Amino acid sequence: MSGCPFLGRKYPLFTSKPSQAEEEDESQKGINKATKGGIVYGEYLQLDKVLNAQVLQSQEKGNKIHDEHLFIVTHQAYELWFKQILWELDSVRHLFIKKHVRDERNMLKVVSRIHRITMIFKLLVEQFVVLETMTALDFFEFREYLSSASGFQSLQFRLLEAKIGVADHLRVPYNRQHYKDNFHGQESETLLSTEQEPTLLQLVEQWLERTPGLEKDGFNFWGKLQANIEEGLKMEKHKLEQMEDSEVKQDLLADLNKQIEIFTALFDPKRHEHLLSKGERRLSYKALQGALMINFYREEPRFQVPFQLLTALMEIDMLMTKWRYNHVCMVHRMIGSKAGTGGSSGYHYLRSTVSDRYKVFVDLFNLATFLVPHAWMPKLNPNVHKFPYMAECYDSSYNSYSSEDSD
Amino acid sequence: MSGCPFLGRKYPLFTSKPSQAEEEDESQKGINKATKGGIVYGEYLQLDKVLNAQVLQSQEKGNKIHDEHLFIVTHQAYELWFKQILWELDSVRHLFIKKHVRDERNMLKVVSRIHRITMIFKLLVEQFVVLETMTALDFFEFREYLSSASGFQSLQFRLLEAKIGVADHLRVPYNRQHYKDNFHGQESETLLSTEQEPTLLQLVEQWLERTPGLEKDGFNFWGKLQANIEEGLKMEKHKLEQMEDSEVKQDLLADLNKQIEIFTALFDPKRHEHLLSKGERRLSYKALQGALMINFYREEPRFQVPFQLLTALMEIDMLMTKWRYNHVCMVHRMIGSKAGTGGSSGYHYLRSTVSDRYKVFVDLFNLATFLVPHAWMPKLNPNVHKFPYMAECYDSSYNSYSSEDSD
Amino acid sequence: MSGCPFLGRKYPLFTSKPSQAEEEDESQKGINKATKGGIVYGEYLQLDKVLNAQVLQSQEKGNKIHDEHLFIVTHQAYELWFKQILWELDSVRHLFIKKHVRDERNMLKVVSRIHRITMIFKLLVEQFVVLETMTALDFFEFREYLSSASGFQSLQFRLLEAKIGVADHLRVPYNRQHYKDNFHGQESETLLSTEQEPTLLQLVEQWLERTPGLEKDGFNFWGKLQANIEEGLKMEKHKLEQMEDSEVKQDLLADLNKQIEIFTALFDPKRHEHLLSKGERRLSYKALQGALMINFYREEPRFQVPFQLLTALMEIDMLMTKWRYNHVCMVHRMIGSKAGTGGSSGYHYLRSTVSDRYKVFVDLFNLATFLVPHAWMPKLNPNVHKFPYMAECYDSSYNSYSSEDSD
Amino acid sequence: MSGCPFLGRKYPLFTSKPSQAEEEDESQKGINKATKGGIVYGEYLQLDKVLNAQVLQSQEKGNKIHDEHLFIVTHQAYELWFKQILWELDSVRHLFIKKHVRDERNMLKVVSRIHRITMIFKLLVEQFVVLETMTALDFFEFREYLSSASGFQSLQFRLLEAKIGVADHLRVPYNRQHYKDNFHGQESETLLSTEQEPTLLQLVEQWLERTPGLEKDGFNFWGKLQANIEEGLKMEKHKLEQMEDSEVKQDLLADLNKQIEIFTALFDPKRHEHLLSKGERRLSYKALQGALMINFYREEPRFQVPFQLLTALMEIDMLMTKWRYNHVCMVHRMIGSKAGTGGSSGYHYLRSTVSDRYKVFVDLFNLATFLVPHAWMPKLNPNVHKFPYMAECYDSSYNSYSSEDSD
Repeated sequence: MSGCPFLGRKYPLFTSKPSQAEEEDESQKGINKATKGGIVYGEYLQLDKVLNAQVLQSQEKGNKIHDEHLFIVTHQAYELWFKQILWELDSVRHLFIKKHVRDERNMLKVVSRIHRITMIFKLLVEQFVVLETMTALDFFEFREYLSSASGFQSLQFRLLEAKIGVADHLRVPYNRQHYKDNFHGQESETLLSTEQEPTLLQLVEQWLERTPGLEKDGFNFWGKLQANIEEGLKMEKHKLEQMEDSEVKQDLLADLNKQIEIFTALFDPKRHEHLLSKGERRLSYKALQGALMINFYREEPRFQVPFQLLTALMEIDMLMTKWRYNHVCMVHRMIGSKAGTGGSSGYHYLRSTVSDRYKVFVDLFNLATFLVPHAWMPKLNPNVHKFPYMAECYDSSYNSYSSEDSD
Repeated sequence: MSGCPFLGRKYPLFTSKPSQAEEEDESQKGINKATKGGIVYGEYLQLDKVLNAQVLQSQEKGNKIHDEHLFIVTHQAYELWFKQILWELDSVRHLFIKKHVRDERNMLKVVSRIHRITMIFKLLVEQFVVLETMTALDFFEFREYLSSASGFQSLQFRLLEAKIGVADHLRVPYNRQHYKDNFHGQESETLLSTEQEPTLLQLVEQWLERTPGLEKDGFNFWGKLQANIEEGLKMEKHKLEQMEDSEVKQDLLADLNKQIEIFTALFDPKRHEHLLSKGERRLSYKALQGALMINFYREEPRFQVPFQLLTALMEIDMLMTKWRYNHVCMVHRMIGSKAGTGGSSGYHYLRSTVSDRYKVFVDLFNLATFLVPHAWMPKLNPNVHKFPYMAECYDSSYNSYSSEDSD
Repeated sequence: MSGCPFLGRKYPLFTSKPSQAEEEDESQKGINKATKGGIVYGEYLQLDKVLNAQVLQSQEKGNKIHDEHLFIVTHQAYELWFKQILWELDSVRHLFIKKHVRDERNMLKVVSRIHRITMIFKLLVEQFVVLETMTALDFFEFREYLSSASGFQSLQFRLLEAKIGVADHLRVPYNRQHYKDNFHGQESETLLSTEQEPTLLQLVEQWLERTPGLEKDGFNFWGKLQANIEEGLKMEKHKLEQMEDSEVKQDLLADLNKQIEIFTALFDPKRHEHLLSKGERRLSYKALQGALMINFYREEPRFQVPFQLLTALMEIDMLMTKWRYNHVCMVHRMIGSKAGTGGSSGYHYLRSTVSDRYKVFVDLFNLATFLVPHAWMPKLNPNVHKFPYMAECYDSSYNSYSSEDSD
Repeated sequence: MSGCPFLGRKYPLFTSKPSQAEEEDESQKGINKATKGGIVYGEYLQLDKVLNAQVLQSQEKGNKIHDEHLFIVTHQAYELWFKQILWELDSVRHLFIKKHVRDERNMLKVVSRIHRITMIFKLLVEQFVVLETMTALDFFEFREYLSSASGFQSLQFRLLEAKIGVADHLRVPYNRQHYKDNFHGQESETLLSTEQEPTLLQLVEQWLERTPGLEKDGFNFWGKLQANIEEGLKMEKHKLEQMEDSEVKQDLLADLNKQIEIFTALFDPKRHEHLLSKGERRLSYKALQGALMINFYREEPRFQVPFQLLTALMEIDMLMTKWRYNHVCMVHRMIGSKAGTGGSSGYHYLRSTVSDRYKVFVDLFNLATFLVPHAWMPKLNPNVHKFPYMAECYDSSYNSYSSEDSD
């Protein structure tokens, strides 16, 4: 916010938690500071580090190539934003892990932060246009100096994938090498320990499984839905069979049978297990039910923000996939399609990762397959309208807004 | 380019300038490296510096506020890109200073790099949407901890303005303070010495003054143009005076007189000096003539790329001004309009900088005022069509492509 | 969605409201249709109208200028999107007018549609880059043929401003002419009758006035807040006065007095009336209180979506203002700063409309001035936490989801 | 340009070609016009057509669904922009067909218009975010009413593909149906006759084949390049073989052999024919040589704008492919992956079109594979530096700027 006049101290005494540290702040006594006290802009942002981290390998090797600077800065900007995404992702996972989401008041935070991640990803997708101002010829001038440095070695990107929930066994291997082979020592440990933590996918799954209304001995959403749909399809079939024979009738019957097939599969838990094992579904059966319920009743006050969350999660998937695709396009332009030094080419490998196998919330996309007319949705009675708010509420131990990040 | 498989060494032996340094590269012998040799991704990008530069003041003071991280990362990303813009800007200025632009072969570089600056600025304008995911309330939570740190202290932004050519005397002071008062020690010196260097505006001005065709004893563009326009306007006036009296005639006459006034002023060098002194023009009279000439004959091969350059320079101005405006909007949202601690508010100050006073290439915009019908433009004869290519050509001392950055 | 394979009929018999019209649909029997029945793409979109509406005036006058086509298409695209914005705006106003928003279930619709408007405005801001590929010289070639056609005559843009709530008396006149003088006949009537309808601003105002918790004999938010702030400021003052004399103390005292002044004004209804009369505030005093309350308690489930709505409304303002600013920039480039045919120039006029006078939800921006530490916010007791949900609930007459657009 | 004050008549008498039509313009005598004469904004843009072309099928069938309006407007906006792209594309093809590009003065037009197409495509890619504000559930509400209308029936999109040069035989069929089966009558004829016209690809190919410097009896670029590369690779091999045995040596040798293979293939015309037949190359062998030559000598004044053109052509390909990919993503979200009514699903079909088979200028991307060190490029001697300007120059028959659109 260069030019922003109000990073400045505003209510210096209003701190609700004045700390020891602050009272003794040496910076208040400084005389060489730009202003009467406090930290200055460049120190605050540690620009001495950030702006002295651009060392051109081409220059080191005695043949400075102008465009290498762009290459470095662009990648550093990507890494900075990856760090911010991880920051948001970790805070959201924390809110889920610590069960803060059981207090509905935290849902605004969750949805806002997931939304912020999508905004950052949009920026990252757009950011390619800057790197694309470098031509293949410009890149060719210095790519020899990069030796073995490879984007595969971006620890943060791998952490990001792991924390969201990209499945290890669904990854495309590159020249028979696992991506983890790129990491060693501390980085390798970080990656391994991260893989032990619950992923965003798993946390969302658990949360969806708790969707109020799924209880078999309560509203029993799934049971009622199955009954309604079976009844509905039967009536459709009956109606169709009454039609005079015609090509149209045949088409409609074919359509209907397709529908029947789809819904029969939906209500078959074994089918779900099968799709899970193939990676075509990623959510548990109960979580899938919760997601469909939130979709159907999204206008209920209790489900409005949860519905926004599901939408934002799909957007993350879509944007990661767009990021991958933009990346592939750029690589094609920079190095052509045949440039691999051995085995399959990098371009073709990257193309293969632009795949639904890397879509974490693929189930949310595929919900669109299971939509039904309003009339088929189980009716909420007036009590049911209200129940969600009673279901889980604020215990007396709730105290402060800033509790979010504490355990 | 996380996931980019081909940062990798491509033609390890093709280096035209194999350096001593490379042959002794210790990294070739390493065993803990991710790959058989060479620098790895994280080292290349110095991620230890870049990703460890986010220290939250709120956390230091014992009250970690989640959104401060976004605030820091966003500003660091801005500063990273400012550095890249300065890198491009310096290289372009260097090409002009070293007279490399007299070799037309360097024009592609100049226009590509100025174009790259515009692409970066577009990204920076878009980047606001990320910071805008932070609400005023989120910002309020930690702005007290920033103490006096202020965006006014962004050295790079001031360097950028200075190097492009924002005029010192046209700046709006903030609470009677000059922006330079924010800088001390080394920063202050850097700023002062930068102000001694030729600005992009001055370099472009000198280049425009050399536009082939301006020579009074040659094609004499300006003299011919003035004659044509005076003749043209006289004929228009004559034609108009023959019309029957009507409201339409009065309107047309009023329009024409306005035109006559505009062109009379254009051909009056004293008028130009006057506008220069007020800051309403920034280019010398001769440079203005060159710019208009390039506009008129932009389709001549010699002028195609120069015309693209003028267009790109206007875009820089426009984007800087959009950046300022987006910044103002964000500040309004974050702190309201009255938040100044004394004197005028920051918001109102910032608004005042979204002004044509800060447009460096304002003359290029205002050229639109001086357009005339094709018939009025001095005709190029077939020889003239060709002359530009003869005018300045490649001397025998030209040797290599990579000479650009040498002196 | 060229290439979209599934505009196609999906559940042809599932319609919950099968209409007479559909059963008799002649199109089912057609044989010349691309497919077995139903409307085809081009007919559905009425492309015969849309794609035959580009008549170049330059061509009509015998001098076809290539770029005029871009000019026409760009403006038509703007008008298409304005129509969509009006569609969304009208539906939201309808939901407010018909008191559907009293059923909280409609809040998702309201906030989604306002959000959609912001997405469209973002596109419209970006759309300028396309028109900016036209240079001033290209525009000069055909602008004479446009005669008096002027963007001031865009009825839809005026309707849009009027429906959102741009205040008539705050508008900048152009050459002493009111913008309405550009409209005649049917258009003029449409404009006049629109001005009689409740604006989005007024509807939001009424809704904010109903914010639960404002009741003086209930939670009494405003009374409690005033007491807390007065007490808080008094304690701050006391604490400050105990400090030893120093420059820092003087600064802090000055800051504090500024704060006291700001809050004294906030709690003074007469001051509010005064600002209202000057156009510096636009919301009623009670609505302002509601808006501040929603901001303070935005994490309460009841206020999460309302808070999103307030944020989206600010974004509309910001984007309209950015649209205006982008427009100004483009006009500067196209016609320079002096091109007015009489009176003030168009450029300078347009600049003057990029003003807070045109910000409809300016109060929401300025709320940032009134933020206070958490400790000063009136505490919600556990009962209060819950009250919002009890306050207004779903009556038994609620029946269907699709009731939104009925009266 | 709503609010644009200067669509207005500027130099009413300056028309170089005042036409009869204008003098008799009836509109001058109108009295109900907004202004004293001329066409008004709404008439000029034919808004009566454009803004009355939104008929909701759901409303026609008695069940108005709010979001269908967005669906229609978005598609109409796409079609409007497709029309503009076709307008630019046709003008560029015309310049090539009429050999106007032999006059280098037309290159600025060509490159500017191709650049404009890329800007429009960028907008179209961004435009998806607007349609994405519609959820699958919203779409489900009205998609039954669209019956068989399908984006496959967008004539303009097919024309666009055909005119750029998407190869008929490389298209992915959809359910064994050719895309042309969607078109009948007039539309079918338009499509067929378009396919007879030279594509942009073909025209660029012819132009590339004329690249000065390719002449075997002249500069003989290809012959010299082959000799240099063969010599260079031989020397590399020799150098490598002198190295002591090591794993590094083995890797380098493997790399080198890969290079030798690539370049051997490059200089083998039969190999080129083979790749052409498979659709992996699209340009003639000679055109490919021209493209590589322009890349190598892009800084020569003669080649600067041609190089920009090649870059812009790649961008069109990249943006079309991004458009396809964004489209696929949206379809996945709207209808899931299984929604096809028969045969393969629409989603999977669309995915298959995001393929290099649809990249028209794929050769330009793959040039990156053939880059070599500067030292290997054939040297231009001072005469050669100049030759391009002599090669084709302005004949005396050149007369006017506006000749572009005439034959």
